[in-house]
Amino acid sequence: MEIKDLGKFGLIERLTKNIVPQNASTQQGIGDDAAVLNYSNKEVLVTSKMFMEGVQFDLTYIDMEHLAYKVAMATMSNIFAMNGQPRQLIVSLGLGKRFKVEDIESFYAGLNKACAKWNVDIIGGDTKSSYTGFAINLTCIGEASKEDIIYRSGANETDLICVTGDLGSAYMGLQILEREKSVYYQQVEEYNNKVREAQRNNDQARLKALQKERTAIDDFQPDFAGKEYLIDRQLKPEARGDVLQQLRQAGIHPTSMIDVSDGLASELKHICQQSHCGCRIYEKNIPIDYQTAVTCEEFNMNLTTAALNGGEDYELLFTVPIGDHEKIDKLENIKQIGYITKESLGNYIITRDGNEFELQAQGWSVKEN
Amino acid sequence: MEIKDLGKFGLIERLTKNIVPQNASTQQGIGDDAAVLNYSNKEVLVTSKMFMEGVQFDLTYIDMEHLAYKVAMATMSNIFAMNGQPRQLIVSLGLGKRFKVEDIESFYAGLNKACAKWNVDIIGGDTKSSYTGFAINLTCIGEASKEDIIYRSGANETDLICVTGDLGSAYMGLQILEREKSVYYQQVEEYNNKVREAQRNNDQARLKALQKERTAIDDFQPDFAGKEYLIDRQLKPEARGDVLQQLRQAGIHPTSMIDVSDGLASELKHICQQSHCGCRIYEKNIPIDYQTAVTCEEFNMNLTTAALNGGEDYELLFTVPIGDHEKIDKLENIKQIGYITKESLGNYIITRDGNEFELQAQGWSVKEN
Repeated sequence: MEIKDLGKFGLIERLTKNIVPQNASTQQGIGDDAAVLNYSNKEVLVTSKMFMEGVQFDLTYIDMEHLAYKVAMATMSNIFAMNGQPRQLIVSLGLGKRFKVEDIESFYAGLNKACAKWNVDIIGGDTKSSYTGFAINLTCIGEASKEDIIYRSGANETDLICVTGDLGSAYMGLQILEREKSVYYQQVEEYNNKVREAQRNNDQARLKALQKERTAIDDFQPDFAGKEYLIDRQLKPEARGDVLQQLRQAGIHPTSMIDVSDGLASELKHICQQSHCGCRIYEKNIPIDYQTAVTCEEFNMNLTTAALNGGEDYELLFTVPIGDHEKIDKLENIKQIGYITKESLGNYIITRDGNEFELQAQGWSVKEN
Repeated sequence: MEIKDLGKFGLIERLTKNIVPQNASTQQGIGDDAAVLNYSNKEVLVTSKMFMEGVQFDLTYIDMEHLAYKVAMATMSNIFAMNGQPRQLIVSLGLGKRFKVEDIESFYAGLNKACAKWNVDIIGGDTKSSYTGFAINLTCIGEASKEDIIYRSGANETDLICVTGDLGSAYMGLQILEREKSVYYQQVEEYNNKVREAQRNNDQARLKALQKERTAIDDFQPDFAGKEYLIDRQLKPEARGDVLQQLRQAGIHPTSMIDVSDGLASELKHICQQSHCGCRIYEKNIPIDYQTAVTCEEFNMNLTTAALNGGEDYELLFTVPIGDHEKIDKLENIKQIGYITKESLGNYIITRDGNEFELQAQGWSVKEN
């Protein structure tokens, strides 16, 4: 169905009619000039993230439902990174004419799944036409008690640096997706060359045979064998709200926290800059999945670079007082990768062979250019 | 200066280094994963608006500073339309490679002007590259006491329908801008034809003469004589927070309210639908500026259609109990244009010659296709 057949208000009605706010803080959701929230007992956390087609995502290898799930998780991740609980989401979409109502419904299906997972209410948004690519902006609102909020600026000398899950896997997933995309386009190009040649020779039998080959190309199946975990990390990331619960139960209150969206090096530098301190991390301690390591080798890429600068992991990076060392040790899926130093000592990584290198952040350039 | 010379973080630092939060509700502004706000004594209002280049704005006739001022006002207008006070703004930009650092600085200059006018803090945002057009998303957060909030749904039978300022002027301003744009492009095309002809004839003297003509075209000045008000309404709209103060001082509490962004007809239908009522408005009472009327005649357009469906006026449309009739009468710049009826009586406009026509909303199609 075409969007213009429904019109703006018809489309919004169709997408949002089943949305029923679940949170007490949501006083009025979709349907007025602004949503109305009540946060009389908590601090309000607010964050916005924008995602542009062709830069942050590529619809040739992510479908609308996964895309929505991913961008919702990426945005909620910012609230978790403050040690907060996400509660509301506002969804703005700039839609090209090529999109059908069904595409937007798939997108909302993905949003609804992500919101259901963390009990978040969709409370409003804006839908506009776009002459060009698909543009998405999500605003996530969350809550935390004042004393629970964890800023980037709270790290102290001797604090331990910890990270959840593993790093670099989402980035290697992207490499595989891009490789398969280029394999596909290469097949299409070779096929087109064959067709042009047959046309030049006016070879009808050859043209007929080529039609069958075309079907084979249309049925192209990317080769993800053994790489499922990496693909999943790239296409279906999970925000680490679970870790916050784990930390709370273990009686650990991190001194600083950030989520890893641009890459470990970049995020660590944010913490150090805002906490006015330095850091040492150990290459050997950076958590890396086996598939990530194997795939880096296949692609002839440096594993540590992928882990340091890959981005899109949406893991949590945080610091804890050194006294929490044993408590952290007992928790699964959290690795201690180094420690906080005086600011004057700079930000360094110590390699497996004992060399020290200054941490370089490539947040912007790796992902966005 | 190129954006890549500064990098993402350098750009953000440059744009935001002078921003100092002014509101007590802003606990932590720019610089962490999320902003932290405190609204312990008020309800929180949140709204997001997206603006896509080529659809909601055209950089051939609006500069970055005016554009920013306009989109900020449009977004704050949504908070005023709830009878709230805007307090914070979150700015997401998708930037094409053609933009320089200076362009974004101009944009922020416009944002800062709009924010200074209503004492609003810029508390965060997101900056991404765009392969295509310029995409803007603003999220505005505001506050109101629970009892002060005015929804679209509160209109009652016999209530008076009121509107601030005048309608249709922003739309007629757009018509003039588009006319001047096409005059300019026509001159360029004619010029190019002359050059091509001279080249065919290898007429060097003519080519030299044409170079002078080119300078004249480059110095093209659009003809806005006598239309300044309309151009201003289109390029520099003002959100009507002033009217809320006026109403409060006069002891008037509207029963329903909305801002006129899509056009009077569309907004009035929203109020009627959500309040489960109907309406009668009088064509003769719709406030229209003299320049709007003259320009409609020039363009051979129907004046009432422009006022009903033009959009982008950012005036406030609201209803008050009929007992407030005299109080409203005393206020400048507020016109009573009709009254609320039973739902079964539908939504009608009564023309100057006494005919009744059902109100047709064209919000989406007029502005966005």
